[in-house]
Amino acid sequence: MRAIDLNSDLGESFGAWSMGDDSAMLDVVTSANVACGFHAGDPAGILRTLQAAAAKNVTIGAHVAYPDKVGFGRRNMDLASDELTADVIYQIGALQGLARAAGTAVRYVKPHGALYNTIAHDRRQALAVIAALRAIDPTLILVALAGSTLIQWARDEGLQCVAEAFADRAYTPQGTLVSRREPGAVLHDPKQVAQRMLRLVEDGTIEAIDGTRTRIEADSICVHGDSPAAVDMARELRRVLEQANLSVRPFAGDRP
Amino acid sequence: MRAIDLNSDLGESFGAWSMGDDSAMLDVVTSANVACGFHAGDPAGILRTLQAAAAKNVTIGAHVAYPDKVGFGRRNMDLASDELTADVIYQIGALQGLARAAGTAVRYVKPHGALYNTIAHDRRQALAVIAALRAIDPTLILVALAGSTLIQWARDEGLQCVAEAFADRAYTPQGTLVSRREPGAVLHDPKQVAQRMLRLVEDGTIEAIDGTRTRIEADSICVHGDSPAAVDMARELRRVLEQANLSVRPFAGDRP
Amino acid sequence: MRAIDLNSDLGESFGAWSMGDDSAMLDVVTSANVACGFHAGDPAGILRTLQAAAAKNVTIGAHVAYPDKVGFGRRNMDLASDELTADVIYQIGALQGLARAAGTAVRYVKPHGALYNTIAHDRRQALAVIAALRAIDPTLILVALAGSTLIQWARDEGLQCVAEAFADRAYTPQGTLVSRREPGAVLHDPKQVAQRMLRLVEDGTIEAIDGTRTRIEADSICVHGDSPAAVDMARELRRVLEQANLSVRPFAGDRP
Amino acid sequence: MRAIDLNSDLGESFGAWSMGDDSAMLDVVTSANVACGFHAGDPAGILRTLQAAAAKNVTIGAHVAYPDKVGFGRRNMDLASDELTADVIYQIGALQGLARAAGTAVRYVKPHGALYNTIAHDRRQALAVIAALRAIDPTLILVALAGSTLIQWARDEGLQCVAEAFADRAYTPQGTLVSRREPGAVLHDPKQVAQRMLRLVEDGTIEAIDGTRTRIEADSICVHGDSPAAVDMARELRRVLEQANLSVRPFAGDRP
Repeated sequence: MRAIDLNSDLGESFGAWSMGDDSAMLDVVTSANVACGFHAGDPAGILRTLQAAAAKNVTIGAHVAYPDKVGFGRRNMDLASDELTADVIYQIGALQGLARAAGTAVRYVKPHGALYNTIAHDRRQALAVIAALRAIDPTLILVALAGSTLIQWARDEGLQCVAEAFADRAYTPQGTLVSRREPGAVLHDPKQVAQRMLRLVEDGTIEAIDGTRTRIEADSICVHGDSPAAVDMARELRRVLEQANLSVRPFAGDRP
Repeated sequence: MRAIDLNSDLGESFGAWSMGDDSAMLDVVTSANVACGFHAGDPAGILRTLQAAAAKNVTIGAHVAYPDKVGFGRRNMDLASDELTADVIYQIGALQGLARAAGTAVRYVKPHGALYNTIAHDRRQALAVIAALRAIDPTLILVALAGSTLIQWARDEGLQCVAEAFADRAYTPQGTLVSRREPGAVLHDPKQVAQRMLRLVEDGTIEAIDGTRTRIEADSICVHGDSPAAVDMARELRRVLEQANLSVRPFAGDRP
Repeated sequence: MRAIDLNSDLGESFGAWSMGDDSAMLDVVTSANVACGFHAGDPAGILRTLQAAAAKNVTIGAHVAYPDKVGFGRRNMDLASDELTADVIYQIGALQGLARAAGTAVRYVKPHGALYNTIAHDRRQALAVIAALRAIDPTLILVALAGSTLIQWARDEGLQCVAEAFADRAYTPQGTLVSRREPGAVLHDPKQVAQRMLRLVEDGTIEAIDGTRTRIEADSICVHGDSPAAVDMARELRRVLEQANLSVRPFAGDRP
Repeated sequence: MRAIDLNSDLGESFGAWSMGDDSAMLDVVTSANVACGFHAGDPAGILRTLQAAAAKNVTIGAHVAYPDKVGFGRRNMDLASDELTADVIYQIGALQGLARAAGTAVRYVKPHGALYNTIAHDRRQALAVIAALRAIDPTLILVALAGSTLIQWARDEGLQCVAEAFADRAYTPQGTLVSRREPGAVLHDPKQVAQRMLRLVEDGTIEAIDGTRTRIEADSICVHGDSPAAVDMARELRRVLEQANLSVRPFAGDRP
């Protein structure tokens, strides 16, 4: 039986400001990318998210980011390599500590926002992030954009690396994401999204924006929970996958 | 042979701003209270301090603080208990991660500044800090002000707790610190300081500000390194202790 | 004709996190307490709020706070007087700059959260805030809790000071707020709230929690906009006041 | 008599961390680029620097920067234009407020670090900064790198713009700065620096790194104060300029 993981960004509230519906999403996803306090998340809120994830047996990943709360980690920052490595170790360690307190553990790392996009192609920053994982725990799995060169760089350095597809995004014929600035880059129909992802899991292909089919290697699908519509889309995707007798389960296996 | 530990606050630089002479102090102390990024310390700088400490076999403690960089953690903040517990776990976890990357480990926790002073007597905040240590790692040792009620609260909760004396501070006949606002609260003569601490280690007493002798139970002595004069005072103290054939060694034992 | 001002806290979004419905509230209130970046608000978001307020001719106040974003300025902080004075000047100046860019001006200052509560009774911190207003612009009006000693302190120092009542809060027979920890402290019925405030404007009294009537001197009423129900309550209050032929207008008069 | 301005970065301490010798530099320079709290500077420390500058009749500029304290504003950040404009207005306004409290006023704006370097050539970010000055006070003078295209962009938008040279930097034959990564980019001999700048003021030329002379239009010379040697170099430069009967005075004229 084919299996697939569903992951989502959680723990992104900050103090008095809330974001997303963590509780609802923890019923949908099998892996939670939990904010580590640099782009979002305060310790008490992160801990509550981790406790809820532990109660629902959802696997935990560290959603590491540039140190830019006001920009939500979405703005490129030109960090020196030693700064980036240490920033990533710091964030993973902090989340590991909170996860331990919540009775769970950090199993993977998924960079967030501008850092995610940058290390998909920028080798210097990619190696700085890879060095962080190797330094703190080489068994941590790195989640990367399907089709990005980051995947090979990580594997060359001895890391396990998992590729992910985005449920609500259009793809080019080359298997890369259509830029958000292009029309049609973001999909809004839950049924269409679910069918595309079902097909992706079943035969490893997706319909590109020009109508051709392209191959995407992905072990996880990223879904969003930042609006009620997004939560509904994620629920529909899970429903369709399970109806097709696919196994929705964490790529990282059960927690140890 | 009687033994004593010397501890100091390290890793307190922040980005382009430097503070203290970590390298010099790592030759003097046996335990390093390393900033965790809330009152001071950036990840890259903390990592360099940890690497230097590991190279010199100095034991690492987490110098946890209120989230107040501009106030250097010296201003009282009325955190809710769950906020304080999570903030402390976050900081310990972050330091554990960086320590692992540096090939060492966090053995103890010493609260900093206003948090240190507050939990010496404020039971609610003290229990929030104690809960943090218990949640992330109950083998962590808490370093507390000699004579404070915090020591008993921590032991009641099952934590190992070590008391410390301050080398350059005057004491009341009751064994508490003379407030910094009082004349004579801070001592400046390295020889006098060394002789006071030698006597403290040898017979457990110190001369109070009124000339009487008072009993202080302390397993560690806190020294400062924030000025060349402070570093010289710490060096002189270590020299005098060793000359008296006392063993200067970490209270936490060798790193595992 | 009797007149009354309605004020509300606005500009409290932060980066990707939104809070409140500024646009709706700007149709209800006559004075906007705009966040200055210390407890909430980022410059671009603050500027948008100021532009919307200018378009609707709403008077601007600086909602100054302790430097504590994660705690939303709601946690007491023990700032030194010179720190507090400079922090308040900095925030007012920043908001003045953004207001100028938006074609409006800052007419008053209303401290936020823990700072608001503290200076209602703490003379040292109150004088530090008063000194800030005097130093940057002595024509700024200070908004204070009705019945607080702050009002006299401010007037003694030559500041104009306006007292405010809280629409949705219960009062003691002494005219002070019932603590939020007490049952019945917060009112939820829009009609009841509107009738209470109408009576307050008409004869300067309010029904206290024990059923007696108490006198409250208030030139402004604080309403909230942090939930759709809160916005509705504010709208109902304004409707009832206008229906009674009261003039709802800014205490600070028209913008110069 | 030819005149020249000397400017330096001041107010760059942060809380417990000190940087530079503001007091000494205020005896040397005629214009002070004062940190605004984004890359450095806390309100109380900024205010003290402004008070000292006012006492010595030194002209004040706003040293605006990216919001990146840990990186000291030296790391490129990809801010959206509206974010950058609002961030710059906020910083200028905050400094104006503190300057008013200190009895002085902000006369010019000099971007700092990565922002300074970026807007020397990046038109989008340059226009965002220019828009900020125009929005808050179009009489503010912009200080820009001599030879940069920023100067023309600013003048095209109606701003007054002043060019500056760097006392301790080598120049290419084209009149641009030799990159710090190149050997010989930074000069260390105070006498050589003073003679180069004297010649620059006298005939508008400087010896480039290849020995040829190149023309530099500069109305101000930037000197540093971040080390005792830097302060000495600045003092020597001023001594040599005054000995040559040049007028060392602020480009912005006397304070109004």
